[in-house]
Amino acid sequence: MSKKIRWGVLGGGGDSLIGVLHRVAASMFDAYALTGAVFNPDYALNKAFAEEIGLPLDRIYPDFDTMVAEELKRPKDERIQVFSVLTPNFLHFPMAKKLMENGFHVICEKPMTMTHSEALLLAQLHQEHGVHFALTHTYTGYPMVRQMKSMIADGAIGAVQKVDAQYYQGWINSIIHDQEKRQATWRLQPDKSGISCCMGDIGVHAYQMLEFVTGLEVQSVLADLNHLYQDNQMDIDGTVLLRFGPHVKGVLRASQIATAEENNFTIAIYGQTGALKWAQENPNYLHYLKDNQPAQVLKPGHGYNSAFSLDGTKLPPGHPEGIFDAMGNIYKGMAKAVRGEDYVPGEFPSMSDGVRGMKFIETTVDSHREGNIWKSL
Amino acid sequence: MSKKIRWGVLGGGGDSLIGVLHRVAASMFDAYALTGAVFNPDYALNKAFAEEIGLPLDRIYPDFDTMVAEELKRPKDERIQVFSVLTPNFLHFPMAKKLMENGFHVICEKPMTMTHSEALLLAQLHQEHGVHFALTHTYTGYPMVRQMKSMIADGAIGAVQKVDAQYYQGWINSIIHDQEKRQATWRLQPDKSGISCCMGDIGVHAYQMLEFVTGLEVQSVLADLNHLYQDNQMDIDGTVLLRFGPHVKGVLRASQIATAEENNFTIAIYGQTGALKWAQENPNYLHYLKDNQPAQVLKPGHGYNSAFSLDGTKLPPGHPEGIFDAMGNIYKGMAKAVRGEDYVPGEFPSMSDGVRGMKFIETTVDSHREGNIWKSL
Amino acid sequence: MSKKIRWGVLGGGGDSLIGVLHRVAASMFDAYALTGAVFNPDYALNKAFAEEIGLPLDRIYPDFDTMVAEELKRPKDERIQVFSVLTPNFLHFPMAKKLMENGFHVICEKPMTMTHSEALLLAQLHQEHGVHFALTHTYTGYPMVRQMKSMIADGAIGAVQKVDAQYYQGWINSIIHDQEKRQATWRLQPDKSGISCCMGDIGVHAYQMLEFVTGLEVQSVLADLNHLYQDNQMDIDGTVLLRFGPHVKGVLRASQIATAEENNFTIAIYGQTGALKWAQENPNYLHYLKDNQPAQVLKPGHGYNSAFSLDGTKLPPGHPEGIFDAMGNIYKGMAKAVRGEDYVPGEFPSMSDGVRGMKFIETTVDSHREGNIWKSL
Amino acid sequence: MSKKIRWGVLGGGGDSLIGVLHRVAASMFDAYALTGAVFNPDYALNKAFAEEIGLPLDRIYPDFDTMVAEELKRPKDERIQVFSVLTPNFLHFPMAKKLMENGFHVICEKPMTMTHSEALLLAQLHQEHGVHFALTHTYTGYPMVRQMKSMIADGAIGAVQKVDAQYYQGWINSIIHDQEKRQATWRLQPDKSGISCCMGDIGVHAYQMLEFVTGLEVQSVLADLNHLYQDNQMDIDGTVLLRFGPHVKGVLRASQIATAEENNFTIAIYGQTGALKWAQENPNYLHYLKDNQPAQVLKPGHGYNSAFSLDGTKLPPGHPEGIFDAMGNIYKGMAKAVRGEDYVPGEFPSMSDGVRGMKFIETTVDSHREGNIWKSL
Repeated sequence: MSKKIRWGVLGGGGDSLIGVLHRVAASMFDAYALTGAVFNPDYALNKAFAEEIGLPLDRIYPDFDTMVAEELKRPKDERIQVFSVLTPNFLHFPMAKKLMENGFHVICEKPMTMTHSEALLLAQLHQEHGVHFALTHTYTGYPMVRQMKSMIADGAIGAVQKVDAQYYQGWINSIIHDQEKRQATWRLQPDKSGISCCMGDIGVHAYQMLEFVTGLEVQSVLADLNHLYQDNQMDIDGTVLLRFGPHVKGVLRASQIATAEENNFTIAIYGQTGALKWAQENPNYLHYLKDNQPAQVLKPGHGYNSAFSLDGTKLPPGHPEGIFDAMGNIYKGMAKAVRGEDYVPGEFPSMSDGVRGMKFIETTVDSHREGNIWKSL
Repeated sequence: MSKKIRWGVLGGGGDSLIGVLHRVAASMFDAYALTGAVFNPDYALNKAFAEEIGLPLDRIYPDFDTMVAEELKRPKDERIQVFSVLTPNFLHFPMAKKLMENGFHVICEKPMTMTHSEALLLAQLHQEHGVHFALTHTYTGYPMVRQMKSMIADGAIGAVQKVDAQYYQGWINSIIHDQEKRQATWRLQPDKSGISCCMGDIGVHAYQMLEFVTGLEVQSVLADLNHLYQDNQMDIDGTVLLRFGPHVKGVLRASQIATAEENNFTIAIYGQTGALKWAQENPNYLHYLKDNQPAQVLKPGHGYNSAFSLDGTKLPPGHPEGIFDAMGNIYKGMAKAVRGEDYVPGEFPSMSDGVRGMKFIETTVDSHREGNIWKSL
Repeated sequence: MSKKIRWGVLGGGGDSLIGVLHRVAASMFDAYALTGAVFNPDYALNKAFAEEIGLPLDRIYPDFDTMVAEELKRPKDERIQVFSVLTPNFLHFPMAKKLMENGFHVICEKPMTMTHSEALLLAQLHQEHGVHFALTHTYTGYPMVRQMKSMIADGAIGAVQKVDAQYYQGWINSIIHDQEKRQATWRLQPDKSGISCCMGDIGVHAYQMLEFVTGLEVQSVLADLNHLYQDNQMDIDGTVLLRFGPHVKGVLRASQIATAEENNFTIAIYGQTGALKWAQENPNYLHYLKDNQPAQVLKPGHGYNSAFSLDGTKLPPGHPEGIFDAMGNIYKGMAKAVRGEDYVPGEFPSMSDGVRGMKFIETTVDSHREGNIWKSL
Repeated sequence: MSKKIRWGVLGGGGDSLIGVLHRVAASMFDAYALTGAVFNPDYALNKAFAEEIGLPLDRIYPDFDTMVAEELKRPKDERIQVFSVLTPNFLHFPMAKKLMENGFHVICEKPMTMTHSEALLLAQLHQEHGVHFALTHTYTGYPMVRQMKSMIADGAIGAVQKVDAQYYQGWINSIIHDQEKRQATWRLQPDKSGISCCMGDIGVHAYQMLEFVTGLEVQSVLADLNHLYQDNQMDIDGTVLLRFGPHVKGVLRASQIATAEENNFTIAIYGQTGALKWAQENPNYLHYLKDNQPAQVLKPGHGYNSAFSLDGTKLPPGHPEGIFDAMGNIYKGMAKAVRGEDYVPGEFPSMSDGVRGMKFIETTVDSHREGNIWKSL
């Protein structure tokens, strides 16, 4: 009998990139068997896609509600154990809610919900139902991000005194200057993508990463967001001043109009005795600086890395793994949780990351709207 | 009915890194179903591993010969279609031979055989039996290597006038200076790993890559190989002078005692009107130089890349893919071939790469032994 | 007859690094003859230093006032033409004032004055006396900074829509955590170094550079500065939100507690059609990004650079010039001005850079003190 | 009285780049006074250039022989002490010879002579006359090259087991494919530039650097040189296999047709316990690798560098110095020698570097001509 976890997928059909990312990630450690799905709200397309990727059609369902109902009819040892929610943002909350209420584990794409209050509800349900929940802030799965977290926890840079995060993309640049395009893009419509574009989509990644690697919590924020045209005031750029404590400050910069940037997400953490820097586009290099010493460059797979980091590397040093592998590590962590095995907190971003993330998004938008003032988080 | 290709695996069980690499690669485009295997010559271990990765045991066979015999008994539309040969080097030839003789397609790890004459035999069988054969020179699957090949073919650098390849690793350094270790390492024993260590293991990757990207053939070589101790004369380092034509020269440098290098494989091709440079450890950057113009840096996934390159990228620019993705592209190409779909020559390294590679290895060793003289290839 | 400009130096004796920087810079284009000096307020040390660097002693004066008086007695064609003011910060204003009042040209180290009102006075004098004045914001002398300015002016990136500057150093980190050291360091005492440490020393460099390369003026700022201990509240770190116009925003980040950073000053300018990025520690690389095109890397000395940039490069491409050469270019520009030759505005930072810089420093400090609010500049 | 060294210059007038390089270098440590010169064989041009750079004309001589004769008439304490020979290659030997015979110290541009036998003669004279001689292999003046030499001498990488040098330029590419241009370029005419172009001009830099940093001597070479057209057989590209000992091998690669490369000179030295790598185009980074440890990046000016390295840095870390500064360090070392002060061997390349360099050039050409065979050095 297979020990693979029975895995269901919601969304991610057709040309969906996120669908590929999750399927490959799930396959990486031979831990998941794709058992059932609603890839598409159109049943015909759903079935066509299932066939295209070689799945039997018996557990390809017409819709989400049917899927839940039918799976619940099966005996527990045949029932899907964990669902990945890859649907449009506004569906994350109702789907995750119903799944957890019915005892399913959930892997959910980001943003977790549309609002902070939805997030709080979800957190409550999560606690009540005792299921596992993973939020796919993919970048925390990189081995050198994990190593950064381990080193800071182990005191490699002393007490944190300054943080700096950048998440610069340019993809909206080619849309925003064209009136027609900027009105047609779902990412720029609040009803479809939530109250924030830039902070909601990428700023929150940077925020979550800063708390993830430092182990600290942001206390308050002051945000200055930007838009370029009066007829579309969704934030597409912004800078957020951060306070982690009376004298521990930082800055988070995010933009989708940083023209021609691809996915330029960087983190720098400065402590009393050293610094660590990492960049998503070159994820296999972790820069470690100490006063008056040669800079060090750590790479994945070496014995000098923490066990937490090494658990996320499959091949020997010099064989570059990438973003699929980072997501794979999150799936690996969730597999341990689902199987009841030991795992390290941080192997997958959790419900509390989701709640704090939604709070961050709402608070930065409020800070900006109220005139760039400090708001507690 | 599933459209997935029925896939068998030989070797690659237990902690095998190559096993993981192939399984993940095969999963990347939803094209293969792992149907049967002999992961391990020990049947108990073989079955245990199959269970560990969640496979049913009905097509987990006690040994290779049984596997072939049993599969042949099945109707064609249930029979395994393609086998991946991940066993120790000396088994590549007999296994690939028997598989092709029985009409199976073969994906074979490198080196293809132990000798050039074995390679020629295999090539003859390949032609006779009309099956597909892929040799996993993984690095040719990187999107920017493919882009390099496309650009050279399209004249982006003019006629090639100079080539330079480097493949530097350091892993043997910690072995070679310890007499006990250097006598115990299989890679340093000719009976287990063939007549060459450095050229056979990594030099041949560089050689194949040079011919792959330039579309040219090396005419002759002059090699100076090196070993450090009299009690182990396997080459662990060497430089090979190359001639592609009367005035088209190059150099191939390979070492396993380039202390502390990881997998530092680089290629530079200089043409009459430009140059292209690529490095395996940062595979998503292709450097394009032209006289008196700003250097250009090409990255995967952009529309300016060739269709051949773009076919090998799954996510938008800035989401770094890595070596698993490179291997995935080779599996994708082989899947097209097996299904009878159109594919571009070069989507997977072929039988002729294998034959030429074995010739290269033998000729460099001869050139060195005979006093660093020119030998035709 | 020598055509060299008669040059006087104030300060910069002994082990002074700034002294070496200016002397080498002045020598680079054979344009200046070091004619007289008060290297040190101690006359004996002054003379000793003059001897050490091989100068005749006849125009090595006991003090600044004597020097001015004696030089004024000489006929105009023997008199020192231009003075470099390299003395401690609080002396910049009185020395520059007296020199300009007496018809001497002035090259002045940064910060120009201690206060904005001093700066305004100096600007008035400058206009009245018709002398030339250069402020040594050294970094604007780099060829690729000049190229950046030329390209933006020529429309290479379209209208600027976002700017980002970083100036991170770590040298105060090893001082600040030691109570004795932080109380003894002149840079941390307001009476000696002015109202600001971080913004006054390095933030202002970043500010001036942003206006230099974009040709835009900052309209308003919101600053959050930081200190680590209650017993020393000089800013040693800070982030400044910038507005260049209603929808043209930016951020300036400066720190002297970015542990183990050396002189990590970077500039990124994003426009509607492209972006330009430059980093001081690798000054010979200018990164030019365009949507959906390969990134370009421009280097000094190539014909594709502007005349303004090329005027600042002495050797062919590939021969790295550095910070001495950047300062040399500022001296070269000033030499043209002094000789009455044509020069391009921007060949040396000017009085108006100095005035605006002092305004920036005072305004950021005010913004912070008043509770991180927007202040006009 | 000035302690500056009286310095004479031969050649380097007009637009000469080498002239600027030497004048700036000589000025960097306030050690030299440009006292007399024959910048140009045309006396009028010579005087015009002297005026242009602000020199008095009394010691601007009509020709070299007059200059020597006139200077000898002066008392010793007024006489020029050291000459820099910046004339065309074929004049290096006769000028250096006459200067040394008359008791002058000599700084000589590379190549030292036209032939190895001339070099031997010069070496003999040098010994007889007890003067100082410096050969301007500029790159050895970089602080991180010096650090590399110090670290290897101190055992930081253990016994050297493999060396690799690359010197790739592309500037001849735009000349060589144009018949008229390639026949008109002096560098490609043996009577003007000597028996070798590529090896004589840049290969010898790489050779000298390898011996400089390792402290080892090349024992024998096997060279494969290249030219592209029958009507011009000067080498413009080549690879040289090196042997430093029975099992210490290496490779030196040089090219002037590495299309669009600027001055891409790199050195990698692999030892039993570590490796060091340096690249001329980014001269302020020294990469230090150790098995199973994070890579280290050393930079100039830090206390962890050797005294030898630190002596060559003028400003604090993060203020990039460049090639002028490297040449300045060679002049600084020569100044110490001329003044009879202590200096470290290696502060300036010496006569023996020149003799070995000429031997290297001739031997590589012979090795190639005789059919790519091993030749002792």
